Amino acid sequence: MKLAISGKGGAGKSTLAAAIVLLMARRGREVLAVDADPDANLAAALGIPAAEQEKIIPISRQAALIEERTGAEVWQYGQIFKLNPKVSDIAESFAYHHQGVALLVLGAVGRGGGGCACPENVLMRALVTDLILYKDDALVMDMEAGVEHLGRATASGVDRMIIIIEPGQRAIDSTRRILRLSHDIGLQDIRLVANKVTGPEDERFIRDAFPENKFLGIIPYREEFRRADRDGRSVLDGLPGDLLRCLEDILKNLEVPL
Amino acid sequence: MKLAISGKGGAGKSTLAAAIVLLMARRGREVLAVDADPDANLAAALGIPAAEQEKIIPISRQAALIEERTGAEVWQYGQIFKLNPKVSDIAESFAYHHQGVALLVLGAVGRGGGGCACPENVLMRALVTDLILYKDDALVMDMEAGVEHLGRATASGVDRMIIIIEPGQRAIDSTRRILRLSHDIGLQDIRLVANKVTGPEDERFIRDAFPENKFLGIIPYREEFRRADRDGRSVLDGLPGDLLRCLEDILKNLEVPL
Repeated sequence: MKLAISGKGGAGKSTLAAAIVLLMARRGREVLAVDADPDANLAAALGIPAAEQEKIIPISRQAALIEERTGAEVWQYGQIFKLNPKVSDIAESFAYHHQGVALLVLGAVGRGGGGCACPENVLMRALVTDLILYKDDALVMDMEAGVEHLGRATASGVDRMIIIIEPGQRAIDSTRRILRLSHDIGLQDIRLVANKVTGPEDERFIRDAFPENKFLGIIPYREEFRRADRDGRSVLDGLPGDLLRCLEDILKNLEVPL
Repeated sequence: MKLAISGKGGAGKSTLAAAIVLLMARRGREVLAVDADPDANLAAALGIPAAEQEKIIPISRQAALIEERTGAEVWQYGQIFKLNPKVSDIAESFAYHHQGVALLVLGAVGRGGGGCACPENVLMRALVTDLILYKDDALVMDMEAGVEHLGRATASGVDRMIIIIEPGQRAIDSTRRILRLSHDIGLQDIRLVANKVTGPEDERFIRDAFPENKFLGIIPYREEFRRADRDGRSVLDGLPGDLLRCLEDILKNLEVPL
């Protein structure tokens, strides 16, 4: 499964992505987590300590190094991944390992005024498209906020997408735009998750906006996620049983074909 | 004043931007609000009804029209704004008007796979750099989430920036990256606003992370902002007196030189 997680900034993409990859890893699945957000934070959501995060070399910088050494034009064609097309190879060569998860970080924009992140996205698309998965392998990509990455079709190699929505008009609008653009790049299998739901009114608000779409689950608004972020812990660390079951159900529903 | 508002996705950029421009307009100032977020939503935060929002033509599309008609290469040089360098002209020619605010929308990515938003950002930079302001005029730009726009230096024409921060490690990390990149593009006047603060612990958490930086204010976590978004109202609509005063104080502090 090649899964992308999208949604408005702040809706809970990194939280959900981290929960899904950690739960998959706990079940012994080989999982490659990809942080495709230039304003990267998946490492923090996975509970990787700040001092460790600094050791992670973004693949954009790794690619530049390889390009320098080999003269290969990695930016244009993503040969870097064509040479290593299996999750296990990529994970071995480039990923940071944490609690059974292999993490690839796309990398933030290096320097103010240094141009757009498009070359990084070409590389990312090559990775996502060319990667060969075994039956139980998974690639989970935490997309950058908003819709620009879809304009660049970073997601065109994925076979499944989750859009996470919080109960606000702006998140609804954002979701509509993502659905439209996803359709343009030929992505069919899209599921929704409602997040930060404070009660039946919030849930109805979100469901009514997307009556045709399949919801994987409804995550209640709870302080625990905020606290985990503030205190630099993994999203699953110290999570109460009911919230954990809610996330496990989402993962279970994700396996059911549309 | 040419002001940019930046911060992690979901931290409250559009909410603060909308509050500032509405309060400025109430005081009779000429204010041009610029929505520079491809996942645009400033119109909603200003309380412009959904049906009206559809009538707003993003400047990226307006520029394309003008290019078609005149043959001018607006993408490269932003002549469109060089020909109309005053707020009043721009506002008259291109903006949508609402409650005394002139709104320019950069525009979402038109079509999935249609390329990156860099040309739109070249245009936006031309606008922000070339615009001539009278003493009390203001341009307030709601930046896209994250840091990529700083890599493209969209903000290089502004003279002041506010970074809005919520109490989470990821928002702190994001703010650090924005500060670093802002420095790279030569932006000196940067102030912070803490948002979604639930108590003294949250406030300390944020202040301790940035002991050297000046805070314009602390916005408490309150349901009213969420509700306004969900119900499609302006951020100031029905706001309790204490929250309104909090936002007015931020605006007042913004006028004080660093």
